[in-house]
Amino acid sequence: MTLDAVLARIDDTLPEALERLMALLRIPSISTDPAYASDCARAADWLVADLQTLGFDASARPTPGHPMVVGHGGEGRHLLFYGHYDVQPVDPLALWDRDPFDPELQDGPKGRVIRARGASDDKGQLMTFLEACRAWTAVHGTLPCRLTIFLEGEEESGSPSMIPFLQANAAELTADVALICDTGLFDGTSPAIVTMLRGLLGEELTIRAASRDLHSGMYGGLAANPIRVVSQVLAGLHDDQGRVQVPGFYDGVTELPDAIRQQWQALSFDHARFLGDVGLSVPAGEVERTPLEMIWSRPTAEVNGIWGGYTGDGFKTVLPGEAHAKISFRLVGDQDPDAIRDTFRAWVEAQLPADVSVEWKGHGNSPASVMSIDNPAFEAARAALTDEWGRAAAYVGAGGSIPVAGYFKTWLGMDAMLIGFSRDDDQIHSPNEKYDLESFHKGIRSWARILARLQ
Amino acid sequence: MTLDAVLARIDDTLPEALERLMALLRIPSISTDPAYASDCARAADWLVADLQTLGFDASARPTPGHPMVVGHGGEGRHLLFYGHYDVQPVDPLALWDRDPFDPELQDGPKGRVIRARGASDDKGQLMTFLEACRAWTAVHGTLPCRLTIFLEGEEESGSPSMIPFLQANAAELTADVALICDTGLFDGTSPAIVTMLRGLLGEELTIRAASRDLHSGMYGGLAANPIRVVSQVLAGLHDDQGRVQVPGFYDGVTELPDAIRQQWQALSFDHARFLGDVGLSVPAGEVERTPLEMIWSRPTAEVNGIWGGYTGDGFKTVLPGEAHAKISFRLVGDQDPDAIRDTFRAWVEAQLPADVSVEWKGHGNSPASVMSIDNPAFEAARAALTDEWGRAAAYVGAGGSIPVAGYFKTWLGMDAMLIGFSRDDDQIHSPNEKYDLESFHKGIRSWARILARLQ
Repeated sequence: MTLDAVLARIDDTLPEALERLMALLRIPSISTDPAYASDCARAADWLVADLQTLGFDASARPTPGHPMVVGHGGEGRHLLFYGHYDVQPVDPLALWDRDPFDPELQDGPKGRVIRARGASDDKGQLMTFLEACRAWTAVHGTLPCRLTIFLEGEEESGSPSMIPFLQANAAELTADVALICDTGLFDGTSPAIVTMLRGLLGEELTIRAASRDLHSGMYGGLAANPIRVVSQVLAGLHDDQGRVQVPGFYDGVTELPDAIRQQWQALSFDHARFLGDVGLSVPAGEVERTPLEMIWSRPTAEVNGIWGGYTGDGFKTVLPGEAHAKISFRLVGDQDPDAIRDTFRAWVEAQLPADVSVEWKGHGNSPASVMSIDNPAFEAARAALTDEWGRAAAYVGAGGSIPVAGYFKTWLGMDAMLIGFSRDDDQIHSPNEKYDLESFHKGIRSWARILARLQ
Repeated sequence: MTLDAVLARIDDTLPEALERLMALLRIPSISTDPAYASDCARAADWLVADLQTLGFDASARPTPGHPMVVGHGGEGRHLLFYGHYDVQPVDPLALWDRDPFDPELQDGPKGRVIRARGASDDKGQLMTFLEACRAWTAVHGTLPCRLTIFLEGEEESGSPSMIPFLQANAAELTADVALICDTGLFDGTSPAIVTMLRGLLGEELTIRAASRDLHSGMYGGLAANPIRVVSQVLAGLHDDQGRVQVPGFYDGVTELPDAIRQQWQALSFDHARFLGDVGLSVPAGEVERTPLEMIWSRPTAEVNGIWGGYTGDGFKTVLPGEAHAKISFRLVGDQDPDAIRDTFRAWVEAQLPADVSVEWKGHGNSPASVMSIDNPAFEAARAALTDEWGRAAAYVGAGGSIPVAGYFKTWLGMDAMLIGFSRDDDQIHSPNEKYDLESFHKGIRSWARILARLQ
């Protein structure tokens, strides 16, 4: 009955919960761009103040980058909750229908949505947990168990401060199990717990040839062109079967266990609709893999950005002195990010023609992680999610990298349950990001049910 | 003796000539960027006013783009002088040592230089002719012959208004011969008349796949990546011998006549120094061609700009919906720019994988042109240049495209003499553009000598 009271409280106070989320969404906490550093600090302070109203002993803890928000409260079984308050950049701004940091509740074709940068990734998601704590405390007068809230401000920029912070504060942060809210529903309708996460390695290269930009009329045909060189390198990254050509790249990649493969085959994944939603029709990856394998269990190499020469309006017959690309690798199994970084750099350098050099910038690296589901907390959470959503919750993989789950395992010896409520059409990292009001509402209710079972 | 008086007048009034050039250089007349349209108009008005002080009947003539400046004056043999008052964009601005539109006379390792965008290309050059007219008029009271001054404001943006303007004003503009000042000295020391000019075809492509930017974690490995597609297209533009792979590209390319080939072999072109000046050492073009052939008489394909995905600081795991490139072809002999445009587009389109489309934007096209040197004006000008510089003037080729020379031939039936005084290290189209004070001074004197022989 007390859970019912908490759920009723959640339903009754949804408008106020939404107002709090809107306030947080108005802070443009873009972590990758130094111009927004003070906004990141402001978002951290906002969360500290909110946690204090819930009875947490909370503070913003400085790092060499953006602060970590840490709060402790309650008694009993110790759970750690993780989310991140930083957001992706908003470019191309012209493709947004409104100011990304002026959130609005809108009527959409599939129901009401909260429209703003960070609505789904990850401010809306992290607030589902805080709102569940708020309703619980309002009904019971106390938190359901001993809770540590741990909110990062650098998730979208490679988490440079995370490992040192975990090392320095291991005793304080280590709990029985971690709860991470940064993933989605499966197929938009079924709750899911992610147990398989790809790792991520980011690389940025600058190819240099002439010591300055040249006139293509005067030097064209004679001088090396860095754009051509970077194009040749990127064009050779995959063979015509979609396999990555960096030597040793597939070392440590394991095939799916049969049990998981069968479970995935049973999932009603409609890849035609998944692609059709974004204007595509044909899987473009490894020709011998299923679409779910491509996004959950196979490693990839993708180019995330490229630039060089004249990119403005009109035309300029320049032969540029340099060209740039940003490349990311998604990693699985036991692939070693450090080894792949070294091999990739050597592979590129071996291709460079005379007079051409390369300069590297690394953007974070994390191995893949696979959770153990032996901890009974997993089955308890799965049952709670099944209760809330009326559909059996599933153990699934995830294409995106959530390195912190691996860091918790490596540095704190702590398993993590990745539970989230976003949908594939939330347009995270893209213009017009949204979070369904239903995700927010039922997300809060889901956490209340999970806390009731784990308390 | 009267020529000597004109030359003395030029020497005596050089400071005032320099001040006038500085005033013109302060106007940021960047024709390719619509934001500078009013500055282009201002540069045209400045030139009209200056021509009027020389006794020309001058006006700025409207076009759908930037105005043409036309002035008529004097009597006798009819010569047309062409230059352009528009300049290239200045990016990357960070690589300039000073404001590109705050010109300065500086001491350099090889003498004094005028530092500013447009100092060499083409404001400094066009002012050499106007200053020669000014000195002549000061000494003689009249212009040396019937002169038409024709100054364009769209040379750096593909000259979209030129052909219609020539068609509409053919009778007014057709002279015995045209003088074009937009080229350079040979090897920095010898005067030259360019008789062989490459044509230019500019193309801009946008490769599209998904209908919006995607999260590379969610879609990477499954969805087509436009950056990879554009890289593959550009990487396939040349074979490993440096030959352009567009079908039929070499149709109409003729081999050099033996006489010209021998003349070029006799020129003391130091390609090691030419490349060394910009930090390079090895010719990167067609393996079986000499460096002078590569830049004067062989066709090329170059990528002038590329962009797509996230290009800011830090890292963003985006899988973009589109990617872009700007490509230019230098054309020689009888290569047909329209035919090459069609074939190039078809060649790219045939390479596109499923779900990927391309959108095109053309940026001007002009065939190559070869001048006839039968007109005795060529030999007269060559003798005048030899007198001024103390070295035999040469007939040479030019890598850059000066389409107006071809337009004069096609639409007005008028040959052109391309005579200019820039040097290879002028950094035209690049940061820190300069024009040697010697080029400016001896350029003015050269035109006075040429006018004395052609009058």
